[in-house]
Amino acid sequence: MDSYLNRAGNILNRIAALADISEEPHCITRTFGTPAFMTGCSKVLSWMQEAGLNARTDNIGNVRGRWQCSVPGARTLVIASHIDTVRNAGKFDGPLGVLLGLDVITQLKEKAVQLPFNIELIAFSDEEGVRFHTTYLGSTVLTGRFDEALLNRTDASGITLQEAIRTMGGDPGQLAADALLPGEWLGYFEAHIEQGPVLYEQQTPVAVVTGIAGQVRMMLTFAGMSGHAGTVPMHMRQDALCAAAACILAIEQYALEHKEQVVATTGILQISNAASNVIPGEVTCSLDLRSADPNMLLTAYNILQERCAEICRQRHITLTWQVVQETAPVTCDSVMSGALEQAIQDAGYDVIRLTSGAGHDAVPVSAVSPVCMLFVRCYKGISHHPQENVDAADLAAAIKVADFFIHRLTGLYNHP
Amino acid sequence: MDSYLNRAGNILNRIAALADISEEPHCITRTFGTPAFMTGCSKVLSWMQEAGLNARTDNIGNVRGRWQCSVPGARTLVIASHIDTVRNAGKFDGPLGVLLGLDVITQLKEKAVQLPFNIELIAFSDEEGVRFHTTYLGSTVLTGRFDEALLNRTDASGITLQEAIRTMGGDPGQLAADALLPGEWLGYFEAHIEQGPVLYEQQTPVAVVTGIAGQVRMMLTFAGMSGHAGTVPMHMRQDALCAAAACILAIEQYALEHKEQVVATTGILQISNAASNVIPGEVTCSLDLRSADPNMLLTAYNILQERCAEICRQRHITLTWQVVQETAPVTCDSVMSGALEQAIQDAGYDVIRLTSGAGHDAVPVSAVSPVCMLFVRCYKGISHHPQENVDAADLAAAIKVADFFIHRLTGLYNHP
Repeated sequence: MDSYLNRAGNILNRIAALADISEEPHCITRTFGTPAFMTGCSKVLSWMQEAGLNARTDNIGNVRGRWQCSVPGARTLVIASHIDTVRNAGKFDGPLGVLLGLDVITQLKEKAVQLPFNIELIAFSDEEGVRFHTTYLGSTVLTGRFDEALLNRTDASGITLQEAIRTMGGDPGQLAADALLPGEWLGYFEAHIEQGPVLYEQQTPVAVVTGIAGQVRMMLTFAGMSGHAGTVPMHMRQDALCAAAACILAIEQYALEHKEQVVATTGILQISNAASNVIPGEVTCSLDLRSADPNMLLTAYNILQERCAEICRQRHITLTWQVVQETAPVTCDSVMSGALEQAIQDAGYDVIRLTSGAGHDAVPVSAVSPVCMLFVRCYKGISHHPQENVDAADLAAAIKVADFFIHRLTGLYNHP
Repeated sequence: MDSYLNRAGNILNRIAALADISEEPHCITRTFGTPAFMTGCSKVLSWMQEAGLNARTDNIGNVRGRWQCSVPGARTLVIASHIDTVRNAGKFDGPLGVLLGLDVITQLKEKAVQLPFNIELIAFSDEEGVRFHTTYLGSTVLTGRFDEALLNRTDASGITLQEAIRTMGGDPGQLAADALLPGEWLGYFEAHIEQGPVLYEQQTPVAVVTGIAGQVRMMLTFAGMSGHAGTVPMHMRQDALCAAAACILAIEQYALEHKEQVVATTGILQISNAASNVIPGEVTCSLDLRSADPNMLLTAYNILQERCAEICRQRHITLTWQVVQETAPVTCDSVMSGALEQAIQDAGYDVIRLTSGAGHDAVPVSAVSPVCMLFVRCYKGISHHPQENVDAADLAAAIKVADFFIHRLTGLYNHP
């Protein structure tokens, strides 16, 4: 294990070096297209070049290092994650997958391994979507499914996406040329911190991801009747907040009863014209519902909508239910995930299967390629926070699994 | 009834004339000490003088019209309400009581009735407390219990209360001289709109007020653990909003079970660092609890605190429970209220007894004098809103009751 720990130490050093590059002092913030972001890209580009990869930055700012194998017409395994961050981020969300991939490739190249497929290591430029409020800019360009309408979207300063692309040295008219063609894909592999507490609770370093939850995000508006907190008797009230509270608890109850399959969260709640001595007349709240099973997502959606409607009917509250965002669930590829499970066993770990509740670049990529993902335990499940942390031993375990994974894939594609 | 309807029409005209005097265009706003407020005071002062009262404006801006009887050493019945308003107010909250009182006195004087007590009609200068965030400035001066420390309190522009008093022509050093001495009080009578829906629902024009609810206002802080809405399974969450929702429903349930005795309201709720995809880690909300029965108020307070604590214990949420304001309940005087009930019967109406959930100037006055209050039905219970309304027929009923009330009091004090 010592060699793996050494490699983990090298990766951690690079993760720390990247974390030092930030657009804000005293915290990590590296959003798409900013000077700090471009400095980070240059750093990753130089590391790829040091490793002997044919490296470049594409038009959307993805840093891409290619290792072409000697087999004519061979397909390409994409190993990727992202290097943009949220504001006040942790170090590991994104960079871990890129730098683990770089380490695995470096070892293979040093051993002069001949692979039956090409590898392209990619540091995606925008997964978090902080600056332009749209996720997956980098990976949608790679899949050839980038939405050109986004080029006119503006950031908080009024700068358009196409201006930001030009500032980075990209050509917004040439994005389509950066796509991998459908026939080029062998598959997609991403290692990422779990961002949740399951591996931490189960005391296991890694897990194979079976799928990525689909998501429906809604805004619920409860319209009742405001009134004086002292003068309207309890039984004459149409309190919008009490109705919202009843719905929030009904939603929680349902999700707890189906806790293996769904999560449901109200993260925003606002009372119109709130005052301590006024009965709330109108309340708006969000509902974020996720499931890796598309049928379950639809069933949960329908049941929760009906339960909330019934609660509001009984309370004489008018409920407006508006879907604001929808993403279909992704099922990871069984062949690739099977190879990953074997690699976890090869490395001597229990196979834990998790669905990802968070979105990842694997979501858009799954439209054009088989995908698989490896989760790495993070401290207490904390993510998007400076306390985000990964133990060196867990990173070493992930490296070992990734090595075996490439070995398993090589076996699969040497003798198809 | 025609003569009462005529008198109601005259009062409504005066209420409308007063409503035209506002510091803001297109709505009624007349807060303590503003030019619009002073114009309103002058108008009321002139009406009192027309009625033959010995009228003046005292140092805190109360407009006071005195009718001295011929009995040496006679005590004084104060008939009062306020003429300041909230922002974007209705016409009736306050002015109704003052102008109804003026009408009743005018009739008595025209009939040359000899009363066994003095009457002082008072338009209090500050009941709503909008400008200096302190209620009852006018009535606390009248009771001799004004808190001199308030003189240095500032409004939103940095003007102190004592400067505002001087601007109105008052002398902040002479407030104590404006108090009625304890031995001077016979009692206090205030007519006021209900500001709630009970009379509207019961289709009754007036009610006698048995007491004014005491109030405890709390801020509750729920501290759980924030987390990613997609990655933290339901059973591993410490969702502060779900805990708050459970407490809000438990509070509502208890108050419904004791709906004759308490009202409880959460009017403010805030989630720290709220986002639709983040599990709420901290929630703060208000709780306004009222009861006219001091024992019930204490019991409800203790039970709700225990229930919320238990909910939070079960959910591993830390609850901080902070009392931010407390007012003791007021019981209206049984002799005066008895006379008022008889007057309601004399006038031919059913006696409805209500507790007031809202505060009134009768609260500070109750510390030095017997108090009683007459509620008048308002449209749908709407108050502190431009739609606030009182039917002429209901106002006529209130006038009739007030006439009989003075008659009943005269009987009581002519033959003690």
